[in-house]
Amino acid sequence: MSPTLVERLRSGLPEEAVLTDPDVTASYSHDMASFCEAGRPAAVVLPRTVEHVQHTLRTAHELRVPVVPQGARTGLSGAANASDGCIVLSLVKMDRILEIDPVDRIAVVEPGVVNATLSKAVGEQGLYYPPDPSSWEMCTIGGNIGTASGGLCCVKYGVTAEYVLGLDVVLADGRLMSTGRRTAKGVAGYDLTRLIVGSEGSLGVVVRAVLALKPQPPAQLVLAAEFGSAAEACDAVCRIMARGHVPSLLELMDRTTLRAVNAMAGMGLPESTEALLLAAFDTPEPTADLAALGALCEAAGAGQVVPADDLAESELLLQARRLSLTALEAVKGTTMIDDVCVPRSRLGALIEGIERIADRHRLTIGVIAHAGDGNTHPTVCFDASDPDESRRARASFDEIMGLGLELGGTITGEHGVGVLKKEWLAREIGPVGLEMQRAIKKTFDPYGILNPGKLF
Amino acid sequence: MSPTLVERLRSGLPEEAVLTDPDVTASYSHDMASFCEAGRPAAVVLPRTVEHVQHTLRTAHELRVPVVPQGARTGLSGAANASDGCIVLSLVKMDRILEIDPVDRIAVVEPGVVNATLSKAVGEQGLYYPPDPSSWEMCTIGGNIGTASGGLCCVKYGVTAEYVLGLDVVLADGRLMSTGRRTAKGVAGYDLTRLIVGSEGSLGVVVRAVLALKPQPPAQLVLAAEFGSAAEACDAVCRIMARGHVPSLLELMDRTTLRAVNAMAGMGLPESTEALLLAAFDTPEPTADLAALGALCEAAGAGQVVPADDLAESELLLQARRLSLTALEAVKGTTMIDDVCVPRSRLGALIEGIERIADRHRLTIGVIAHAGDGNTHPTVCFDASDPDESRRARASFDEIMGLGLELGGTITGEHGVGVLKKEWLAREIGPVGLEMQRAIKKTFDPYGILNPGKLF
Repeated sequence: MSPTLVERLRSGLPEEAVLTDPDVTASYSHDMASFCEAGRPAAVVLPRTVEHVQHTLRTAHELRVPVVPQGARTGLSGAANASDGCIVLSLVKMDRILEIDPVDRIAVVEPGVVNATLSKAVGEQGLYYPPDPSSWEMCTIGGNIGTASGGLCCVKYGVTAEYVLGLDVVLADGRLMSTGRRTAKGVAGYDLTRLIVGSEGSLGVVVRAVLALKPQPPAQLVLAAEFGSAAEACDAVCRIMARGHVPSLLELMDRTTLRAVNAMAGMGLPESTEALLLAAFDTPEPTADLAALGALCEAAGAGQVVPADDLAESELLLQARRLSLTALEAVKGTTMIDDVCVPRSRLGALIEGIERIADRHRLTIGVIAHAGDGNTHPTVCFDASDPDESRRARASFDEIMGLGLELGGTITGEHGVGVLKKEWLAREIGPVGLEMQRAIKKTFDPYGILNPGKLF
Repeated sequence: MSPTLVERLRSGLPEEAVLTDPDVTASYSHDMASFCEAGRPAAVVLPRTVEHVQHTLRTAHELRVPVVPQGARTGLSGAANASDGCIVLSLVKMDRILEIDPVDRIAVVEPGVVNATLSKAVGEQGLYYPPDPSSWEMCTIGGNIGTASGGLCCVKYGVTAEYVLGLDVVLADGRLMSTGRRTAKGVAGYDLTRLIVGSEGSLGVVVRAVLALKPQPPAQLVLAAEFGSAAEACDAVCRIMARGHVPSLLELMDRTTLRAVNAMAGMGLPESTEALLLAAFDTPEPTADLAALGALCEAAGAGQVVPADDLAESELLLQARRLSLTALEAVKGTTMIDDVCVPRSRLGALIEGIERIADRHRLTIGVIAHAGDGNTHPTVCFDASDPDESRRARASFDEIMGLGLELGGTITGEHGVGVLKKEWLAREIGPVGLEMQRAIKKTFDPYGILNPGKLF
């Protein structure tokens, strides 16, 4: 820890905004990803104003000290992990909702606003902020913007990126840049807003965001369909999408996940069920829409098809889905959650391939999928205290990404590259794309102080 | 014209792909914008393959010759205008639809595909490609991507940018870069796809695009509402949007436009109508939705509210809107079409301000607006043979942009910057944003050969 650095930081920040106690700063060292290195921060800065962020970055730029921007550290790719001697810049105290406008259908927020807090606040005005990562009760809008997060709603409503209209961004040298707009449309110059979204804090630090909102839709009604094979469930997904349905949720759980949930929560799901499909509509006539969708499931070979009659039943049907990750964690103590996304027509091939990979490595890999988007969460269960099993877990994780690319997919549908997948980015985007990405990074951050070691 | 350049081009291109007859090449010198300089091309290249485009750019890069990419030249900002001695690279012969997939809901196309051709082709498979610029029967997908075009559908379906999943782009030096994906979601690395969309051919030449499709919605049913003032019509727009309606179209025509249409087509619109609002729903129950919307119009002060009973009536109601630009052109012979977009809550203030500007400059300015998006097309009518009137037309055009910025809007909602608005870009995005935009341009195109003199 450099006294000069800390003194310089303190010269423009309130006392309580700069943490240096190593026990405290260590607790800011990593997000929720497995297998990602994390260093020891020199200091943690908790800004409350844009000027605080600017001061921090000016200081870091001048002293060439790495800065790692952080939200709630719920990420799953190590993108928020500290490097040795870095400044962790935690935006959680910049958590004001500055504006909600029902006519313009926008919200203006600071980056530390928790997703659920915003969702609730806009809901009270009849509005809807769709992006709903699983961690939505903890994660921040700034973190969501950094990783361009998705969630369950994406099959109908798209991802975070589609809801970011404009940003205020502090650049590596401390200058403030405004991008985008607060209008519904706008094409003045290059789309720097979208360049920043998903850039994992490597191009600048978001200090303010203008977000697009939708009108609050009716509450969704859920249907569960049980299949004797994952292939049939995937066939149902293809039929549903080809027929032009627009469900507000279309999730798949494979046998491994269902058995883990059964084992943990005793939900009495029949052991003959090899795959469960959950679908929902938030349309004006969800019952009729669910009936049409249920018929397609039956045509694809579904055994039982259970449409909910009301919201309470819908919630019950979603229980198994909500418990999935916890249940899979209980299998072996540790999980590694992938997020490979393939064209939805290749979902069946991906799941079949994952089963083969699990067998070959003698591992339990449960698949939960945002099936309507072809976005899977193959979840490798392993005992982290067993080095051989850990090695096999990591190998299987990589093989799943390789399979995803072979099937025309991407290594990451919604979690980002971070540390975890950086060796894979080049394989996906190719040498020319990688060179241009690196060139952009250099343009924005010539000294490489912003979240170094991530993405590339 | 340099014989070396043409010889070099011909060495890698078929005979018919290189045009040099000055009478022919002159016809490629400009798009449909007024007041934009246009030079004389040295040659027009009409590639049919990606390799043709790569050869052209390699040649241009080596000889430092400007390249101006072009679609159908229906643009309204001069972004496709030739510069002296440039190569015009017209992509219109690369017009194949390579793939349409109803399960993955994507189309893969070459840039020269005409918007209407794609719309028709996907419609035959029950799919829908929403972006619908007014020039949709002529304009190309490549041109739409270059300017991030909008249209009438945007109020519900968004703009071109939201439908571009991945691109193949030939860079300034002739290398081929692939961006994005063909999956529903994906966050691997910086979003270079969105950086290219709207970049007006200044960062690379799009040679292939993966486009997202929607299911074909039901045909829309239209309602017309007449108002005694533009302010009331704008108030109705605010009420409609605040109440959570999602119309598939929400257009406004002001008094000037209505009188021009009446004068040209004798449509018998009452002269007491100061503003006409056209709304539509493509929902399963459009009649009920239109009734609710009509009631809001009445509450805002509408006189007559006329809902269509069927598709034929809907088409009739849209007639006046479709004739608007032609009618305004007839007023003085020439028009200059702006596309300032403001937060929709400021639409009334913008229209009122435009009236003042028209009065001050003794000009006829008709306003057509994609009202639901706050995106206006103030259309300045003038006699191009009258230098003083032309000067006043240009001055009023600029003042409208200034007013748009004052009201928290953008200088361009959907037409782009091109030549026409480049002095204004800096005012909108500020010095830091402009510096970063220029730096990105330099990163992609170090010799500045791609569409020079546009945007900046």
